[in-house]
Amino acid sequence: MKNYTITFLQEQLSIAVPEGTTLLDAEIQAGLQPDAPCGGQGSCGKCIVRIISGPVTGILKACSVHIQGDMTVDTSLKATGHSLLTKGSSREIIVAPMIQSVDVEVEKCRIGESDSDWDRLKTAVAAKSSVPPASVPPNVSVAGTLYEILKSSDYKPNVILCHNEILDVRREHTPYYLAAFDIGTTSIVGYLMDGCSGEEIAVSSMLNPQSQYGADVIMRSNYALDGHLEQLSTAVRQAMNQILQALAEQAAIEIRDIYQVSFVGNTCMHHLFLGISPGALVHSPYNPSLSEPLILPAKEYGIRIHPEGRLMVLPNIAGFVGADTVGCLLATNFSKRDNMTLMIDIGTNGELVMGNKERMITCSTAAGPAFEGAKITCGMRGANGAIDHVTFQGERLVYSTIGDEKPAGICGSGLMDTVSLLLQHGFLEESGRLYSPEELEHPIAKANAHRLVTIDNISAFMLAFPEETERQEPVFLSQKDIREVQLAKGAIAAGIQLLCRNLDIAVEDIREVLIAGAFGNYMSPESACNIGLIPPVLRERITPVGNAAGEGSKIALMNYTEFQHTRHLASGIEFLELAAESEFQDTFVDELEFPLPEEMRECE
Amino acid sequence: MKNYTITFLQEQLSIAVPEGTTLLDAEIQAGLQPDAPCGGQGSCGKCIVRIISGPVTGILKACSVHIQGDMTVDTSLKATGHSLLTKGSSREIIVAPMIQSVDVEVEKCRIGESDSDWDRLKTAVAAKSSVPPASVPPNVSVAGTLYEILKSSDYKPNVILCHNEILDVRREHTPYYLAAFDIGTTSIVGYLMDGCSGEEIAVSSMLNPQSQYGADVIMRSNYALDGHLEQLSTAVRQAMNQILQALAEQAAIEIRDIYQVSFVGNTCMHHLFLGISPGALVHSPYNPSLSEPLILPAKEYGIRIHPEGRLMVLPNIAGFVGADTVGCLLATNFSKRDNMTLMIDIGTNGELVMGNKERMITCSTAAGPAFEGAKITCGMRGANGAIDHVTFQGERLVYSTIGDEKPAGICGSGLMDTVSLLLQHGFLEESGRLYSPEELEHPIAKANAHRLVTIDNISAFMLAFPEETERQEPVFLSQKDIREVQLAKGAIAAGIQLLCRNLDIAVEDIREVLIAGAFGNYMSPESACNIGLIPPVLRERITPVGNAAGEGSKIALMNYTEFQHTRHLASGIEFLELAAESEFQDTFVDELEFPLPEEMRECE
Repeated sequence: MKNYTITFLQEQLSIAVPEGTTLLDAEIQAGLQPDAPCGGQGSCGKCIVRIISGPVTGILKACSVHIQGDMTVDTSLKATGHSLLTKGSSREIIVAPMIQSVDVEVEKCRIGESDSDWDRLKTAVAAKSSVPPASVPPNVSVAGTLYEILKSSDYKPNVILCHNEILDVRREHTPYYLAAFDIGTTSIVGYLMDGCSGEEIAVSSMLNPQSQYGADVIMRSNYALDGHLEQLSTAVRQAMNQILQALAEQAAIEIRDIYQVSFVGNTCMHHLFLGISPGALVHSPYNPSLSEPLILPAKEYGIRIHPEGRLMVLPNIAGFVGADTVGCLLATNFSKRDNMTLMIDIGTNGELVMGNKERMITCSTAAGPAFEGAKITCGMRGANGAIDHVTFQGERLVYSTIGDEKPAGICGSGLMDTVSLLLQHGFLEESGRLYSPEELEHPIAKANAHRLVTIDNISAFMLAFPEETERQEPVFLSQKDIREVQLAKGAIAAGIQLLCRNLDIAVEDIREVLIAGAFGNYMSPESACNIGLIPPVLRERITPVGNAAGEGSKIALMNYTEFQHTRHLASGIEFLELAAESEFQDTFVDELEFPLPEEMRECE
Repeated sequence: MKNYTITFLQEQLSIAVPEGTTLLDAEIQAGLQPDAPCGGQGSCGKCIVRIISGPVTGILKACSVHIQGDMTVDTSLKATGHSLLTKGSSREIIVAPMIQSVDVEVEKCRIGESDSDWDRLKTAVAAKSSVPPASVPPNVSVAGTLYEILKSSDYKPNVILCHNEILDVRREHTPYYLAAFDIGTTSIVGYLMDGCSGEEIAVSSMLNPQSQYGADVIMRSNYALDGHLEQLSTAVRQAMNQILQALAEQAAIEIRDIYQVSFVGNTCMHHLFLGISPGALVHSPYNPSLSEPLILPAKEYGIRIHPEGRLMVLPNIAGFVGADTVGCLLATNFSKRDNMTLMIDIGTNGELVMGNKERMITCSTAAGPAFEGAKITCGMRGANGAIDHVTFQGERLVYSTIGDEKPAGICGSGLMDTVSLLLQHGFLEESGRLYSPEELEHPIAKANAHRLVTIDNISAFMLAFPEETERQEPVFLSQKDIREVQLAKGAIAAGIQLLCRNLDIAVEDIREVLIAGAFGNYMSPESACNIGLIPPVLRERITPVGNAAGEGSKIALMNYTEFQHTRHLASGIEFLELAAESEFQDTFVDELEFPLPEEMRECE
């Protein structure tokens, strides 16, 4: 069996160990007394190290690394080795953010010496981290008050590092914070995280104030291109500041102690936030102006965290596959999956990713915002009063509303349930046409024939009669609304078909279907399959993964190796432009039809 | 004889040539048709290349490189191969600034492709330069308008590079400019340079407006430490903006077309400009807070050039040996000198550098501002009306004034001439005491005995009687003024002695004495030796090198390799803290005495 040499950087010692030894055991043998309360079971996350060179590199749990070659290891991360259980995806993430806090001891200058305090600080940082002095860029602002801080801290300050940059030098070791954002077209959510423990300590959200300039990305892009780009940028940046303020108040912390903000969003939200013209996004061939992962000075974007704080932006993939999709990939550990997986993120557009660790392919479908309640006569977002689920109990139609309030409209999941029910009980032809009351055959349909009405000359299905509702106005689904659902589900279903063809697999080869987004949590997988949004054969393989984009934003924020990985995630995924595929139109038209109830039964 | 392989990056071809071949010949043999109008004589500077790897690297004239190993060469600099003859030092500098202008062709995105316009731009830049795409950091601001610029330039824009950064993408190839500054305690000078030809196209200067807050660096530092740092920073930055405005007006260019500003200054000017507390500079052990060479976003410092423009700051050496000294070293090619050289920069402090290409050592002497006219009763700066030279024609005292105006005071060179004359003609004891009229022996002295007067109870030598002057007030040199000159000259002379001892050489081993600063141009080397400021034995070896600090600022600006070299210049020079040398006080006291006229004659 081979021996390999492990060099521990801070301790300045090397040890030779046999192949296959865990790095944790190597540390123990070297006498380093690593902190591993779980006894190397991989559950406590305390034993994390940064592997600087070797067959694997990055931040890893020492107990999980089986030595396969010579390595150089930085053990200075030990103190902050917590792990973070993300909500949506249940992925365990080691807390090792780009922003680190290190206590250092700076050597005092003696008479006759000429090197600067900044040089001395860099040497002190190198002694406590894996950051070589030559790699630290000068920070004039930090140098500006360095003399006074060194004196008042008795030359033992606390340093805030951003990878190899020194962002702040503080008189003493106090907590520091980070904030992750998910900037949606409709709403913005911010999460405040403790930089050291990795705990989520506050959450706050608000509607995206850009909505006043247009409901969807196309309207906002056009408004930006009409000379209002700055207005849109300012709106979303101010919203971020408001959320940061709310988070700081909730957690009773100083906003100045927040050193990094990460965000994900679709390409349009990404460009508008950064002040990038959306021209390239809305003109053929629809590519982004800028895609790569970014670390930017937050103050240049008007974000009021610590003045030296950084903005972390996840990369885009294609013109309509943005950083939000990269966030979803990160949260679902997509690029490491063995099983063939389909991820669907349904919002104003529907983004699809299909593949596994071997190969990944993505496309964007113009699914329209029907499932967000837009373009639906009685549609609304998933807010209080929205009918979110519908079923028949015997012959009686029963619905539930969000907040148990009187119905005010119908949201995406209610919409999907309703269409599914109409199909199952013979109110609706597979072509998408509502039958007339006389054509009804199913006994439940016959018993509810009075719900088939005509409103404004369009046939409709009545969900809630005026007397049942808050504003004494009916909540119904019209023939036109059903057409919108057909267009949306047809686009997504066709996208799934084309991804399968490009991967040369059959639909039934997909082992897992992950539904991202809040909508994914509310929608009934059963209904999604009944209406053919998701191929019925995948009915049992569907898992909602919650706000995976937001989770991805948190993961990148809390683990720098994961953030660095996003570059490869974004560049390693293939992009399928549906509009450029000759079969797309045919497939789309085929998929406009709803599945027959018979087909449903066959699949069960 | 060995053969070596030369790889030409842009042309994607390699050629094997025998050892010792010039790189220019290798280019010719490879069929590259290099532009070399001088036929390889080294005089035209057109054949410059960037050697990326090999026994030597950097920007060099191909005709000057004799091949000693395999090399990778970037020939894309050819077009801007001019050279710049600097005024003070007569050094020939190849024009190869950090800021470069490149015309590129960007490939249009086609449908089905997903990469960003920014990625395409990076690829296009790489095809025309030695900047690999992966090394280009993202520039959100440039990406922000990229789509529109690409469209309107038909995808053939002009790119402004700052080393590996893209600062601007322009619709067409137009000139671009750079500006070099010398920020003195008293005055600020700016030079506007054409980025392509390297020509100096305008010069402008003004008094340093910080003077209103204190005449010297100590007063200004104390004012800064009293809570007025920002006020001092703003004052000098605004002055830079005013000069930039004046330069742009003189040259009839847009200020937006200036992409870089370099500056040198003493450590205090350096810290105050950048907003760094001068606390470390004025408290023992007097080291800088920040020394290293800097490239900074100009807009962060309120400098109104192109919004993406960069500020280039030369490094400091020690607490009282600043970037101005580094500028002087650069201008005088100090680190490449064969001869043992002494450089003296006399201002509010006197900085000394001694050495050659083997070893360099520097010290700062508290020479005081006497030679700038401060603390001298009738002292003034070298402005109109200042007596700048004094001599005897026969028995008659003759002086000249700047601008040929009636005398208003005396400046540094006049001061030195006067003290020299007083010594030579027996008005002054070597101890520095003015003789009384009765003690005079020299015939010229006797004939001018009426010039020895008593003013305010102090003996004095009258240079200009009230009736000769503009304001009907006498211009004279008092016993107290002579003591100030003694203190200043004693400090410098002692510094020279200690540098010699540290280098283990005798004073006469110094082959060249370079006097930097405007004062160096005006002062009489003869007088400087007569009063013992410079050891009389070096009388014939003195060369004034003009505003070498400003020349150094220009050189760094116009040749990036020279700028990069400043890091090694600053870190490679040894620093001698005179105050920490036990012999300093004795040597200083010895050097307070003036040389005897006999000694002078012996040396002649």
